[in-house]
Amino acid sequence: MRFLETLKNIKVYEAGKPIELVVREFGIEPKDIIKLASNENPYGTSPRVVEAIKKDAHKAYLYPDDSMYELKSALARKYGVDGEMIIIGAGSDQVLEFCARAVLDSSSKVLMSKITFAMYAIYATQQGAQIIRSSCYRHDLDEFYELYKEHNPHIIHICTPNNPTGDAIDADAIFRFLQKVTEPLVIIDGAYMEYAAFKDSSKSVDPKELVERFSNVIYLGTFSKAYGLGGMRVGYGIASKEIIHQLLKLRPPFNITTLSLTAAVAALQDEEFVQDSVQKNFTQMDRFINFALQNGLEFIDSYTNFITYMLDNTLNSKTLSDVLLKRGIIVRDLSSYNLNALRITIGTAEQNSRFFEIFKEVLDEYKR
Amino acid sequence: MRFLETLKNIKVYEAGKPIELVVREFGIEPKDIIKLASNENPYGTSPRVVEAIKKDAHKAYLYPDDSMYELKSALARKYGVDGEMIIIGAGSDQVLEFCARAVLDSSSKVLMSKITFAMYAIYATQQGAQIIRSSCYRHDLDEFYELYKEHNPHIIHICTPNNPTGDAIDADAIFRFLQKVTEPLVIIDGAYMEYAAFKDSSKSVDPKELVERFSNVIYLGTFSKAYGLGGMRVGYGIASKEIIHQLLKLRPPFNITTLSLTAAVAALQDEEFVQDSVQKNFTQMDRFINFALQNGLEFIDSYTNFITYMLDNTLNSKTLSDVLLKRGIIVRDLSSYNLNALRITIGTAEQNSRFFEIFKEVLDEYKR
Repeated sequence: MRFLETLKNIKVYEAGKPIELVVREFGIEPKDIIKLASNENPYGTSPRVVEAIKKDAHKAYLYPDDSMYELKSALARKYGVDGEMIIIGAGSDQVLEFCARAVLDSSSKVLMSKITFAMYAIYATQQGAQIIRSSCYRHDLDEFYELYKEHNPHIIHICTPNNPTGDAIDADAIFRFLQKVTEPLVIIDGAYMEYAAFKDSSKSVDPKELVERFSNVIYLGTFSKAYGLGGMRVGYGIASKEIIHQLLKLRPPFNITTLSLTAAVAALQDEEFVQDSVQKNFTQMDRFINFALQNGLEFIDSYTNFITYMLDNTLNSKTLSDVLLKRGIIVRDLSSYNLNALRITIGTAEQNSRFFEIFKEVLDEYKR
Repeated sequence: MRFLETLKNIKVYEAGKPIELVVREFGIEPKDIIKLASNENPYGTSPRVVEAIKKDAHKAYLYPDDSMYELKSALARKYGVDGEMIIIGAGSDQVLEFCARAVLDSSSKVLMSKITFAMYAIYATQQGAQIIRSSCYRHDLDEFYELYKEHNPHIIHICTPNNPTGDAIDADAIFRFLQKVTEPLVIIDGAYMEYAAFKDSSKSVDPKELVERFSNVIYLGTFSKAYGLGGMRVGYGIASKEIIHQLLKLRPPFNITTLSLTAAVAALQDEEFVQDSVQKNFTQMDRFINFALQNGLEFIDSYTNFITYMLDNTLNSKTLSDVLLKRGIIVRDLSSYNLNALRITIGTAEQNSRFFEIFKEVLDEYKR
């Protein structure tokens, strides 16, 4: 038996016990665990969506509508594009996977930011492609253009706002960049776009304008963040009909569950919940900024539902996150990204108060 | 922009409107539509599973436990294997995809039955591999062995019971075959095994024995059929730790939704529902056999929750299924498999009575 050579370069992410179980082993009650690690919507799922799921729960035995007629129609209306310009994935992750598998082989290069969403590199590596990274964690599109000319990549990843750093690019700068870069497939990942658009409209990238002007671009959106459906695995890509047609060749049938379709359609009918979540997010974000200023922590100005605290030499992100874990607070240590930084999801007012209280104690102990 | 050469050989399955909508356009009320096309469990989802989904509906915003700790533990107990010998996929489909992507490239061959589950060929084609088929729709393992020696395939697919024909292979014959075929990855797809095991224990393949005796074999199971969760997309592979380790390299994070994990774990706690569904299935199967005998239809002896009526020259499966559709009955025309045959899911007693009534009328009109 043989496995392909490309697999040799891939490590398995060994997921151990659920982290909630680990925390419980420290003697902390489930109700006292505060998870600010995965950028889920801390206001949960819209009550109207929860009702829709309950109403359809008995349909779990029925295969999903593989045409995704209702969801595609709703997204087409929302964005003012044709339904044939939309592909639905099990999270926008899966659309990323389709792109990698449609375009990349072992002769390909992929261009991305020094620090950006980890799945870009993982899917590229699965195809045996070579990864080219910019020197700065921010998307310096001038540097991207230089690297593009030098390396001729088959895919360019632009993540705006960027995960795990939270910064965003001006839409104008993206459009100018795209005018010069007509060859590769350019993937604009807008997983957190609802947050950026609320904070600063100049960061808001309109998928319709994007794909109407450029035939080599795909825009990615998701229901996992502002729409409060991280557990349901629904994302989408918007692009020219030709790109979508090619990607559909790799879509497995029934890639979205029956109840995920129900949930996503219902979520699109409750934009009020989304806007309310986003608004509260930035009210709470101010508290994280104030906390950083009061405690001498550097932070990256964030256009998302998380904030990244950059730590100086006196602090270690791995140690800090471990200490927080033992106190029942789960945050994301970014040392695997080679950053001495913590990424913290902006929680509810109550969660955040508790986080500040404990983090302050931890910092004080640490500095003693 | 370029797409890989392999995509040129792939057609997109153009899913149009949901078939239920089409039927409604014929003026048929939703309550009068009888869908016997997708081999879902006609007894629906276990009430205990429905309750579990409703109870967890509010967790839709939370990413799933990516370790799938609970589900893997429950499956490990059920089959008496180590958790590290299990991989969970979005349907057993996704495990098939992992196998193809881990093993096949454009130099590979894949061996399968003349008529078998369509996804085997689709995933192989996505990898650019060549497909070798046996001459008989039944799995003639002697012919498989001859073809194996001639072609040296990297993957061999054995589907037992076979979809869309319903026949099953003796477990002993599979074990004898495997003793001679130690090189390729052999995939034993047991999607309908719960049905076969109930009808005839000699067809029952034990995954534990299979993977303990052969290091080049993977067994696939699913929650989509007897377990009544077709819409939730949960399947699994059981194999040696080494095979599972390689496949895990291609598993995207969060490939199973939060509520699908809930549903699958709950379904494993209600084996009574499964056994009851399977038992009723074969009581109803007898009616389909009698109907065939009374109406001079050939059929394949089925070990599944469907029956395949093989039509003679006087009948055309495409025409018949279209006529049935206009009467609100959805069955599966197998002309895309080059079979003049109808695959009909064994429904509930009430659904089946209605089916026989209408099908009898259609046959009589057709023959007039």
